[in-house]
Order: sequence, then structure tokens, then C-alpha cells
Amino acid sequence: MFESAEIGRSIDKATFEAEEPALREALLEAQYELKQQARFPVIVLINGVEGAGKGETVKLLNEWMDPRLIQVSTFDIQTDEELARPPAWRYWRQLPPKGRMGVFFGNWYSQMLQGRVHGKFKDAVLDQAIDGAERLERMLCDEGALIFKFWFHLSKQHMKARLEALKDDPLHSWRISPLDWQQSKTYDKFVRYGERVLRRTSRDYAPWYVVEGVDHYYRSLTVGRILLEGLQAALASPQRTQLQPHAAPLVSSLDNRGLLASLDMTQALSKDDYKEQLATEQARLSGLMRDKRMRKHALIAAFEGNDAAGKGGAIRRVTGALDPRQYRIVPVAAPTEEERAQPYLWRFWRHIPARGKFTIFDRSWYGRVLVERVEGFCSQADWLRAYGEINDFEEQLTNAGVILVKFWLAIDQQTQLERFKEREQIPFKRFKITEEDWRNRDKWDDYGDAVGDMVDRTSTEIAPWTLIEANDKRFARVKVLRTINEAIEAAFARD
Amino acid sequence: MFESAEIGRSIDKATFEAEEPALREALLEAQYELKQQARFPVIVLINGVEGAGKGETVKLLNEWMDPRLIQVSTFDIQTDEELARPPAWRYWRQLPPKGRMGVFFGNWYSQMLQGRVHGKFKDAVLDQAIDGAERLERMLCDEGALIFKFWFHLSKQHMKARLEALKDDPLHSWRISPLDWQQSKTYDKFVRYGERVLRRTSRDYAPWYVVEGVDHYYRSLTVGRILLEGLQAALASPQRTQLQPHAAPLVSSLDNRGLLASLDMTQALSKDDYKEQLATEQARLSGLMRDKRMRKHALIAAFEGNDAAGKGGAIRRVTGALDPRQYRIVPVAAPTEEERAQPYLWRFWRHIPARGKFTIFDRSWYGRVLVERVEGFCSQADWLRAYGEINDFEEQLTNAGVILVKFWLAIDQQTQLERFKEREQIPFKRFKITEEDWRNRDKWDDYGDAVGDMVDRTSTEIAPWTLIEANDKRFARVKVLRTINEAIEAAFARD
Repeated sequence: MFESAEIGRSIDKATFEAEEPALREALLEAQYELKQQARFPVIVLINGVEGAGKGETVKLLNEWMDPRLIQVSTFDIQTDEELARPPAWRYWRQLPPKGRMGVFFGNWYSQMLQGRVHGKFKDAVLDQAIDGAERLERMLCDEGALIFKFWFHLSKQHMKARLEALKDDPLHSWRISPLDWQQSKTYDKFVRYGERVLRRTSRDYAPWYVVEGVDHYYRSLTVGRILLEGLQAALASPQRTQLQPHAAPLVSSLDNRGLLASLDMTQALSKDDYKEQLATEQARLSGLMRDKRMRKHALIAAFEGNDAAGKGGAIRRVTGALDPRQYRIVPVAAPTEEERAQPYLWRFWRHIPARGKFTIFDRSWYGRVLVERVEGFCSQADWLRAYGEINDFEEQLTNAGVILVKFWLAIDQQTQLERFKEREQIPFKRFKITEEDWRNRDKWDDYGDAVGDMVDRTSTEIAPWTLIEANDKRFARVKVLRTINEAIEAAFARD
Repeated sequence: MFESAEIGRSIDKATFEAEEPALREALLEAQYELKQQARFPVIVLINGVEGAGKGETVKLLNEWMDPRLIQVSTFDIQTDEELARPPAWRYWRQLPPKGRMGVFFGNWYSQMLQGRVHGKFKDAVLDQAIDGAERLERMLCDEGALIFKFWFHLSKQHMKARLEALKDDPLHSWRISPLDWQQSKTYDKFVRYGERVLRRTSRDYAPWYVVEGVDHYYRSLTVGRILLEGLQAALASPQRTQLQPHAAPLVSSLDNRGLLASLDMTQALSKDDYKEQLATEQARLSGLMRDKRMRKHALIAAFEGNDAAGKGGAIRRVTGALDPRQYRIVPVAAPTEEERAQPYLWRFWRHIPARGKFTIFDRSWYGRVLVERVEGFCSQADWLRAYGEINDFEEQLTNAGVILVKFWLAIDQQTQLERFKEREQIPFKRFKITEEDWRNRDKWDDYGDAVGDMVDRTSTEIAPWTLIEANDKRFARVKVLRTINEAIEAAFARD
């Protein structure tokens, strides 16, 4: 969930300064239009890691926009007035009216996260708080509110570097708050519970936006753009009640540096290394699948990837190690008539392996947010709600002991072209290349955005995505096998 | 929540036999239309108290309709197959396809209720299960499913009478299952947790229908009618995705015997009794409000009722006992401009009393499901979702220590007419009677239905409705005061 906010996204000063004036003007204009229409309020929730630029961003928004129409509320320690009433009262009294924007700094999410991180309660009570937040937000959106939820993020490494840099600098060490020092100790917990909260409360009508906070230019431009696009879409929409989904959450390519672009595609294995490592990993998998601890678990591997990235070959290397009674491969193509008569996830639920078994999905439930999204096979509302449904589905699987590994096999455009051409040359491979493959290739960037969003919204601690650099098939196959083995061993270690 | 399913609703045999053939025919027709359109599946959940006719009703549906298009699933003890997979798998594999109807007998609700009643877990885990059920149902409805949730109910008294009657009858004692005996012991818990589940999972797109199970004719006709109306509305609606609300849940007047009609309106107090009891209750209230245990609580009284039912007079008798610094009266009329710029409940949140204080709402947040519903001031979707929002609001209040009492002051039509005429005669009361009052009077039955639905959906253990027989003003005033006093004492006793 935070992967693409840990790759050190940045924008250079010149680009920022070139873009800023137009963005400011458009934001101001949207703000006045909001006031004019007075049809709905805007609520901006600010959360995330300390030191990731939350305060600076709110300050900047006030500079960029008309501060008379923005009301910033900080919810810190409860006042006497607030303590004498139900907890939600403090939020209700600060709600912005229609036509205005309210920035909630320290809000219902900060409270529940602090409580959980400091061990004041367990997951079940956290989930009750999450549920309460969801009810509140659903009601607000049903009443027309437009809600933006921002999570400002820093990798642990970046956070530590920042603290180190500041601490020895007499001019700036005051910038480190006690909260910062505290968080450097609780970072892992904070991020883990943060992920649980984000996973369960990201809804199509009130999604989370994760923003990497290292670079001030990147961070500011990203937040400004998300606000602007969301505002403009809502202002243009004739109706604003009944849980309107946000506009597509697409700002990932702002620094031309998506998650996929951050992969090192030159990684490769020599033939000899490959032979040796493949044999080792296959033997390891075979042993693990026969281990008696496997009786408590089932294994699911989902394979997605670019066309011609080598999914089939990788799957064959996985199954090569196994007894056919242990596994099943489910190729996912267009749904059958029977499947079309059921909810979307039904076709996957029917193939869930029993304990001790292994199911390999050759393409998966992610089709909804990949091909169906890009090709328009389902409505925007459908694929936007799919992220939440998928996270919920995968949580049910892992709660029941399923070990779930998800692969995106990535190749670059040049490699794909070469493989397509090669396939056309070889008679027995010709069936593998169709007109459709060439058409998909034209949508390379759309697929890239869809993959970025997919990873941002569905790579979770309980079911992380593994991106496989697959320009070199040998490297890819070994990495796939090794990832599966490591996931099984990690599950055994947790038992 | 179960009040109107404990008044012994029944229909005579002749009425039933007169209605049955047309209902059967219409149900069959709807069923074939459903198959023809094949646009959505229908899922019927059967829950409730043992012995309230769950099994008989399912049997009857199979007789009435074409059983080839109905698939009845019982979820009892999990099979080996099911135990080896995530808990929801058993439900997914039994989902009816589009065009068909699935009856789920013993479902996710039965499991969570059994677990809670038998102390396998506490409320926080129950709430997690509730949340899971809600996610599942929202997803199903987003995918187009039409869900009916029936709760078959018997009052404790009726349940006991039934067991007694059967036990000595050699021909029928076999009808008593071990579950029945068990439930006669756990009835109170079962109903208490059942209410929590119903309150939190009744949504406009998948509402609960509570059906009193004593009389087989009433029960069967009620279920048949609800199914028919819901089916017909869904079949006629062009679109069936994105959480369509159910048609108005209006079948309460089936036996011409709503909750209001079951009140004994002849109750009265003599002048002397009134004087004495009024003084007693006022003194009691005054003492309770000054009690130091009150520092942990706030008190809210919401007054609703027919026009001219005597709300104002009753409120004056309540405040008569108190120091003006202790209480505040909030008269609720049309919302101000400022209030219209906020979510519906905002105007009530702003008046929530601090601990130790008392707020009296002269009309309340129930306006949404009363006057706004009847007069069409808000959309059907808006008032349908209001029940859930109100329950959520009131749960927050009571969780924070607020003692909440809600009154419906009921008078009959004749009494209202007399009071209207009297008001027109007396100069200083003339301002109290307007054209609008006469217009409201024409909608007497609509208001009656709205009150019935309101009580069914929002009278909860934590915030029950009290219906006040107000033909006699003296009786009404004393009952109001006594109810408030008893609520405060009950809260103190729970501390």
C-alpha cells in the first residue's frame, strides 16, 4: 500500500515553478465556483507519518487558495467542553458548511491509530472505530460532502535520515517535535496499523491518497492536483448525493516515475546459476508443500503481467516441482455464462483451495482493475469499488490460513516487441499472439497507470504484491519460486 | 424494534383464503418475470426466534411459487469441505444466479448470534462479524442482488405459551426441538443481541423485516406481500446496481392493527390523583437531576406526537420541576439557512447537552422519517437511510452516557378534532391552529404508517420509544414524567 510512496519521488524546482501559477489559479477558480454553487462542502483529512510534510502542505494550501473559504481544524487533546459530550461532537461542530472547505488536521483516524499503537486497545476495538469512521463518512457523502483523505508517507529510512540531518543542525533542530522522536520508535507499528485502517476505509466515494512526503515540490504538486481534479469533477457533476465515486485516482505519473519505472530491469541470471538456483528452489517448494505444517494452510499464487512477460513459463517452473494432486491451475479468461450470472468474485471463490492444497491463478480477480478498467468492460464505479472488495476478499483468505502471493511480471516495451515478433516466427508459438495483443500494446501507458493504482490500493501487509523484473526469463522464474518459498516459510514461522 | 411484533397480530381464516389465490398468482408471475429478465438474483435470509414459523414459511413459499426456481440452503454445522476453507465460502457456493431465488436458512446472522449468545465472544467481535456481513451484503447489492431479511418474532410470553401447549400434546410434542428448549432459557439474550444485529445491519438497500410469528395466516400473508412488492419494484426498475433502496417497507397495516391501534386510549387520571402523582414525579425528577450520579450523564428527551396531542403542556410539566440553568428546550421547526448548509443531523448535534445537563427537543431528528417522508420534503432514499443514521447517532449518545427518552404522544382522530375546534374558539390559542394542521389531519393514515415504521426501526434497547396515550392530558403528563424518572434511575442502577 505504501510501496509507491517509498521510492523517493521528486520533481525539480524548475518544473514546479513552471506548473505552480496555473495550478494556483485553477484552484482559486474552483474554490470560488464551490462557494458560488454552495451545493456541497469539501472535507480534507490530513494524516500520515510525522515529518512527511503534513503541516507544510496545509500551510501551502492556505497560501494558494483563499484562506477565508478554508477552515483548518486541529483536533488534539479533547477540551472540557468536548469531554462532556459524545466523541464525535468535536467533529460535528467543525464541519464546513456547503460551499466551504474544512481541513481536519488530526482527526478520527489519528485518534484510533494513536490508541492502537500505544496498546490502549486491540484490533477488534480498532475495527469498531474503523466502522464508526466509515459510517460517519458514508453519511457525510450521502449528504453530498466531497471528502479527500491524504496519507503523507515517508519510508523508515527517509524518516531516520531526516531526523539525523536535523538533529545536528542548530538552526533546524527545533523542527523535530517530541512526536517525531516518539514515532521513530513506533514507526513500524504506526505503519502497520495505518495500513489496516487505509485498507478498510478506502472507498470509491472517499478513497485514500497516499503521497510521498520526501520532496516538497512533488508533495505539493501532487496534493494540489488531486484536490483540483476532484473538485472540478464534483463541480461539474449535476448531482451530489448518494455516494458519488471520486474521479479516477490517477496522479501517479506526475513525476514520470511510477512504481514500474523504478524497477531495475537489467537483472539477469546466467544459465548455470539459473540451473542451480532453479533446482534448489524447486526442491525447497516440494519439501515445503509436503511439510506437515502445510496442513493448516492453503496456498494461492496469482499471476498477472504484461503480455508475453512469461507467465506461462514461470508457472510451469513452479508446478514442475510438484505432484499434480497437490495443485490446480485456473486459467482466467472471459467469464462463462454461469459466471456472468453471479457477482464478480464468485468465479474465484469457487476455486479456493482446501487446506493443504495449492491453486495457481493464471490471471486473476485483478482483471477488474486492469483489463476491465482499461478496456471499459465495466463502469468506473464498478472498478473503483473493486479495490475495497478485493482487499476484503484477500483478508478473508489470509484470516483462514491461506498463504497468498501475487505477482506482476513486468517487461519493457522493447522486450515485448521482440517477443511478439519472435512468436510470429515460430509456428507452434504463433497461436499465442493475436491482434488483441497488438492493440493492448497501444495502451501501454494506461496499463501502467492501472498497475500503479492496483499496487497502491491492494498491496497490503497480509497480501503484498511482488513485482518481478521479467526481461530475463531465468531471473524471473527463480524470483517467483523464491518468493513463494519465502512466503510459506514466513507463514510457518508465524504459526 | 420488536414492539409491533409482540402485539398478537392475526388475520382471520376467511380473509386469508380470500387473499391467497391472487397473491400466489402474482408471486408466480413475478418469479417468471425474474427468470425471464435474468438481471438479478434474489436472496432471502430467514432468521429469528425458534418456533416463530421460519420453517413453515419457507415450506409455504415453495408451495406458492415454482420450487424449481427456488433453491433453499440450510447452513448448519460446517462440513469438512467447508471447514477447510474461509468461512464465507459456504455462502458463495450457494449463491443463486441471476434470475433465481435463494433462501438462506441459518446464515451469517445465525452464526454470529449463536456465538454471542453462548458467550464464545464479546460485543467487539460481534461487531466485527456484523461489519463482515455488511460488506458482503453491500457487495452483493452493488452487483445487483435483491436481498430480503426476515426476522420471525415471538414475544417471550407467546413463546412460552406455545411450548406449554405443545409439550402435553402427544401428537405434537415432537414439534418441539432441542433448540426450542434451549431458547426458552436464552430468549432474553437472543433477543437483545438480535436487536443489536438488526439495528446495525438494517440498510435502505437491505432492510430487515420483522414479522410476528404467532398467527400463521398473518405471518404468511405478510411475508408473501413483502416479497411481492419488493420483487415487483425491482423488476420494474430499469437499473439494478449501485445499492438501490428497497421500496418503502410498508406492510404494517395488513391486519388493520398497527402499534398505535393497540394502545388503550381510555386511560385517564382524576384531578386529585393527577395533582398528587404530578407533585410526586416532579419532586422525584428534581431530586434525580441534583443527584451527584447525574454528573456522569446527560439527559435528552425528544417529544413527537400528533398535532394538538399536548406536547407543549407535557414539556411544561417536566420543566416545572427544574432550575432553568439545568435544562434547555430546543423547538425544532424548519431548518435555518445555516442548518440547511450542513448534513441533516448537524442541527441536533449542536444542541447535545454536556454531562449533568438536560435538553428537551420539541420535535426532533425524527422529522425526517415523519413529516419529511409524508410530505415528500426529502427523497425516499434519504428517509430510508435515515433510520440507520439515527440508530447510529443514538448509539453514540448512549455510549457517551446520555440518557435518551423518546415520546410519541398519541391521540385519536376524534380528540384531535375537538381540540382543533376548541383552539379556534379561544382567542389566545387561536395562533396554535393553522391551515397546515387541517391538511396534516387529512394524512392521518400516512402518519400512522410512518410512526409504525419509525418505532419498528428505531425503538431499540438503548433508546426505546415510549408511546403515550394522550387523550387524557393528565394521564399523559404523569406518564411522561414517570418514564423520564425511571430511565434516569435505570441508568444510575447500571453505573
